[in-house]
Amino acid sequence: MHPLDKALELERSGDDRWCGRTIPEWANMVGPFGGITAAVMVRAVELHPQRHGQPIALTVNYVAPIADGAFDIVTRVVRTNRSNQHWIVELSQDGEVKTTATAVFGLRREGWSDTEITAPQAPAPEGIEPSAPPFGVAWFDNYDMRFVDGGMPDAGDEPTASPSSTTSLWVRNNPSRPMDFVALAAVSDIFYPRVFLRHGQFVPAGTVSITVYFHADDEQLAAQGDDYVLGTARAHKFSGGYFDQTAQLFGRTGTLLSTSHQFVYFKA
Amino acid sequence: MHPLDKALELERSGDDRWCGRTIPEWANMVGPFGGITAAVMVRAVELHPQRHGQPIALTVNYVAPIADGAFDIVTRVVRTNRSNQHWIVELSQDGEVKTTATAVFGLRREGWSDTEITAPQAPAPEGIEPSAPPFGVAWFDNYDMRFVDGGMPDAGDEPTASPSSTTSLWVRNNPSRPMDFVALAAVSDIFYPRVFLRHGQFVPAGTVSITVYFHADDEQLAAQGDDYVLGTARAHKFSGGYFDQTAQLFGRTGTLLSTSHQFVYFKA
Repeated sequence: MHPLDKALELERSGDDRWCGRTIPEWANMVGPFGGITAAVMVRAVELHPQRHGQPIALTVNYVAPIADGAFDIVTRVVRTNRSNQHWIVELSQDGEVKTTATAVFGLRREGWSDTEITAPQAPAPEGIEPSAPPFGVAWFDNYDMRFVDGGMPDAGDEPTASPSSTTSLWVRNNPSRPMDFVALAAVSDIFYPRVFLRHGQFVPAGTVSITVYFHADDEQLAAQGDDYVLGTARAHKFSGGYFDQTAQLFGRTGTLLSTSHQFVYFKA
Repeated sequence: MHPLDKALELERSGDDRWCGRTIPEWANMVGPFGGITAAVMVRAVELHPQRHGQPIALTVNYVAPIADGAFDIVTRVVRTNRSNQHWIVELSQDGEVKTTATAVFGLRREGWSDTEITAPQAPAPEGIEPSAPPFGVAWFDNYDMRFVDGGMPDAGDEPTASPSSTTSLWVRNNPSRPMDFVALAAVSDIFYPRVFLRHGQFVPAGTVSITVYFHADDEQLAAQGDDYVLGTARAHKFSGGYFDQTAQLFGRTGTLLSTSHQFVYFKA
């Protein structure tokens, strides 16, 4: 089974309740990669028999580190409207809440469409060397990342500060896997903390809240298939021990698949 | 009493429970202005005796229209960490949930800071004519808005589509009022739906979810005082009946006070 799908295996344990477990393949420095946790929250709603439509907007709050092992998820439908549906989702371990989320699911409708932004200039991914994980973080192996600019600082080098917080990269699941909403939720959190880039080194940092807007529909996800996405992320402001980072994920032909925003705690 | 403070009057009705009511001054076309609802959610947490620190990040989901009259708010602290605290907030009327929110409160810490973005070029607000509300929407009167570009379409004119979704404006409370976190939450939703600008006319549209990141600290809010803020907002993509809009609010000297992001339903 693909490591993404393995991490998303949930078993129904009651009305509105699901059981899952962390797997070593997605381990981050503390707890699992935030993107896989976001994907798990989406999957729990997708599995719910009352689910109406597809992911539209998602906010995930990282409340406390998830320990290795089993977790419980409670999915509560707050309200189902004609075209959309609101959810509150909580992930806990031994009765302690570790992650909360709100999700809007819904039906997309035909109509006027336009994309105002364009993907960053980038050579094709096939011509870029895949990035070697900078140190032993397991989840990096689940993505083939090819940095266009703003690559991760090398832990062995003298710190080289960057005046810009922008990173652009091609990325796809490794092994490759067709794009769907859960995969899109996960990869929307692919961008390492922007403060690393600005400081040219690793400093303590952790996302407190991430929001993902799903712009793609089924047809656009099918067209994406298992190809690379081109992602770009930047920060606006660092202060008071927090910074924001905002990201966009495009398909190879320029389709904007998702935008995401996060607020990150840091110490520097 | 200032109309902002009047709208935020909440009475404790139990552990974790608060009562409030809509007031006509903040009426929008359907229900109250979304920004005032966001501010009410923040205020409920601020009033809670267990509240730890100040607003850091907020997501508000507009689940169903709020009817004129009384509402109940339940504030639940999910977890208090050393430096931050996670909340789930729900606003209901007659037992039906109308709005949900998650909020991160916390302590800000001294350290490295930098702002990467700059405010848009704009003449001083004193030289710009205040905008007359385009039609009888009550809450417009609570803000003095001076558009730098991307003003609201005039309902009487032939629709003139705009190739850009960007609006920049100076705005402050009317009557003026010192800036604080609740006022910042409210004004972060000041930007009318970007699809109006693109189409040069009003079309059905409503925010489903808004996220606000509070970059300012107490000192920066005190320095802001009751002066105008310079806001700018734009969309990235319109499709499937939804679009995103992303906004930044600056003080007159360029301090970035907040960033906000929303996902909006539309019909066009």
